[in-house]
Amino acid sequence: MARIAPLSGFPEWLPDGRVVEQHVLDTLRRTFELHGFAGIETRAVEPLDQLLRKGETSKEVYVLRRLQADPEAPDNDKQLGLHFDLTVPFARYVLENAGRLTFPFKRFQIQKVWRGERPQDGRFREFAQADIDVVGAGELPYHFEVELPLVMAEALGRLADVGLPPVRILVNNRKVAEGFYRGLGLDDVEGVLRNIDKLDKIGPDAVAALLEAECGATPEQAKACLALAEISGSDASVIDAVRALAEANGAVTELLETGLAELGALVEAAAVRAPGVVVADLKIARGLDYYTGSVYETVLVGHEGLGSICSGGRYDTLASDGKNTYPGVGLSIGVSRLVSRLLSAGLVRATRGVPTAVLVAVTTEEERAASDAVAAALRSRGIPVDVAPKAAKFGKQIQFADRRGIPFVWFPGGDGGQVKDIRSGEQVEADAATWEPPAQDWWPRVVPAV
Amino acid sequence: MARIAPLSGFPEWLPDGRVVEQHVLDTLRRTFELHGFAGIETRAVEPLDQLLRKGETSKEVYVLRRLQADPEAPDNDKQLGLHFDLTVPFARYVLENAGRLTFPFKRFQIQKVWRGERPQDGRFREFAQADIDVVGAGELPYHFEVELPLVMAEALGRLADVGLPPVRILVNNRKVAEGFYRGLGLDDVEGVLRNIDKLDKIGPDAVAALLEAECGATPEQAKACLALAEISGSDASVIDAVRALAEANGAVTELLETGLAELGALVEAAAVRAPGVVVADLKIARGLDYYTGSVYETVLVGHEGLGSICSGGRYDTLASDGKNTYPGVGLSIGVSRLVSRLLSAGLVRATRGVPTAVLVAVTTEEERAASDAVAAALRSRGIPVDVAPKAAKFGKQIQFADRRGIPFVWFPGGDGGQVKDIRSGEQVEADAATWEPPAQDWWPRVVPAV
Repeated sequence: MARIAPLSGFPEWLPDGRVVEQHVLDTLRRTFELHGFAGIETRAVEPLDQLLRKGETSKEVYVLRRLQADPEAPDNDKQLGLHFDLTVPFARYVLENAGRLTFPFKRFQIQKVWRGERPQDGRFREFAQADIDVVGAGELPYHFEVELPLVMAEALGRLADVGLPPVRILVNNRKVAEGFYRGLGLDDVEGVLRNIDKLDKIGPDAVAALLEAECGATPEQAKACLALAEISGSDASVIDAVRALAEANGAVTELLETGLAELGALVEAAAVRAPGVVVADLKIARGLDYYTGSVYETVLVGHEGLGSICSGGRYDTLASDGKNTYPGVGLSIGVSRLVSRLLSAGLVRATRGVPTAVLVAVTTEEERAASDAVAAALRSRGIPVDVAPKAAKFGKQIQFADRRGIPFVWFPGGDGGQVKDIRSGEQVEADAATWEPPAQDWWPRVVPAV
Repeated sequence: MARIAPLSGFPEWLPDGRVVEQHVLDTLRRTFELHGFAGIETRAVEPLDQLLRKGETSKEVYVLRRLQADPEAPDNDKQLGLHFDLTVPFARYVLENAGRLTFPFKRFQIQKVWRGERPQDGRFREFAQADIDVVGAGELPYHFEVELPLVMAEALGRLADVGLPPVRILVNNRKVAEGFYRGLGLDDVEGVLRNIDKLDKIGPDAVAALLEAECGATPEQAKACLALAEISGSDASVIDAVRALAEANGAVTELLETGLAELGALVEAAAVRAPGVVVADLKIARGLDYYTGSVYETVLVGHEGLGSICSGGRYDTLASDGKNTYPGVGLSIGVSRLVSRLLSAGLVRATRGVPTAVLVAVTTEEERAASDAVAAALRSRGIPVDVAPKAAKFGKQIQFADRRGIPFVWFPGGDGGQVKDIRSGEQVEADAATWEPPAQDWWPRVVPAV
């Protein structure tokens, strides 16, 4: 067999890492379900022309070919590619099933996606995403733009007890930015946003120069754009600051006021429901070229260099069939990026890598059925149990459990047997029909690693 | 936008169908965990040369290409294909991580796989599999060949209450077949198996003719092979019948006796632990060319035409790195095939397609925060809740719930409010801090459709 080596960009976890990932996935799913999101899955492939509709992502797509497709005969199959996100497939699913769904339709979707990008720390070619979206038929009230980031804040907050650092959800609003720029007299909104997005990389002076050179801004207009980008905060004062800046620059527009009312409602609701988590940050420009209202990015506090772990926004046209338009708002968690950091930075660990709470020892191979019977009795009450693979010396069987982190070893005998906590050495008589492990030992748990 | 049409062979479910699939997946996972199997996932891709090692599956593989890979420059990427099962990736995972795993290693794996075959009823191009395997380092005791089909019997048995028809696990053993054929004097074991596998299709006379023409069998030898294939049963008598046939034909060998002891142990254990489920069927020949011991196929009683929904067997060499050999035994459930039949045959249904048990009505948009507070109080106790999207007339809001199968509507007011069971019309005062839905309404359930 050829030498086996990992493939760069295609992460896999050992069993104890998978316990961590599974806990994250279970927690997200449960939170989404508590908020009434229905779970769906879509196929991994979409027609290539659908994947390339937006143009900009073409370089990331993996195209499929059947190895035995006849190269001589015209290929009857539509050309297919692997999906690179869960938004494009969801939009297609909504159109395909519009007559069978009820709107507004709230769905969550947890699946792998694929991008042929160069792998880097936190950037993979195959990774899991967890998305929530609400899509309306024709209309979608603004309050969903307030609720969805709060659902994500709650979902991520439920991971704090296992060692997830606090998150900060940065929000902005396309209407605020566009209203402000247009009020200033700058109509190349996309151009301004594109350059503002470079602030962290090249600094304010270079951005100002680009705004003047590329977007026709005067030095005063450029300065006002930079001043807007500096505003951030987690209460209503941020709205006042933007309005004051707009007034000072004669940049108040109706669009700006609409955007400020929306952003203000979000910040206010967040201050009550997720204090300290949501921050209005007027510097956020990424995504504002295609989102039409709110936009969200999320950083792990202390791990800002990892980039956003949960992003999204509002689309006035998530999907459209020409006759009907489906506006949507949603966010997507980069689960693999998050889990990869949790594991590589040693933030969390699983208490064990196997589900097993109890190993039933086997006295002799002839008596294996007695051990199987004990295991069946425990399992019937929901206790995860394994039976020793071999009737080796008990010391070896205890070692088997110890190596896997299995806390209890059961020695069958008579009517029940004895169960030993191999951490403390304590051994007691027990009845397989009634004995239970302590709650904290029942299933593997995910705990802070420190 | 182009016309949207489903892709043949790539099944997707509506939300209520996904509730059924998710219930199946959750049930399988929980059963596997109760038996101590650790969950892992592997990447969706493998190097193409690894996927093609066995040669026979080449026609099924989807090959990947990055759309923007430079056609001029030599491609630095290894050629990758989508995995067509979970056994090849698992064997690679075992070799790659051998030093970090503990053996025998029991794992379950639930993932999508892809095959570029022509789609048919129950045959998909993308489908979910649920696999369990035990792999040993160097050795693997026979008792795992008894246990693994019983784990699957238990997993599938746990779905009986939602409407899954009974299953029958048909078992055979390579050693029995090979020992018998060699005892007869037929050394082209693969050839005999290949022709025996055609019995259902072409009948015994045609198979006898092929055994004589292709495998050098005398009419008596062919007759003995057909007589072996006719033996089946779910108790020890089946072992006696094979031995009697072998004795009558002078075909008793050591290998046959080893195989009969194994098959007998499996049938006996199954009669105790899963009565009526496991049937020794000496006709089973598929897979015996690559499995080295037990082989399993599973049919849904009443849906035999669907083919096997859960197959597997023992490999003496699941993986090998030249120095070390890893024997394994495992089975794989075709989840998509199973779920597709459950849905299309109308055997099961979900009580609703949304997780939501309670819809909190909104009196006016100004009072939405009061509804949000009720929802938060209910969710904090694990009750799945949605809030009405619009402060429409209450009749409309009740209709919103009714269309989704949400059983309860909560009308906020005063300290708590009133909650209405919209099926019975009963409406009572309730406190969001203490009220609970009945257990059967808490989450969507999967129930027999009849």
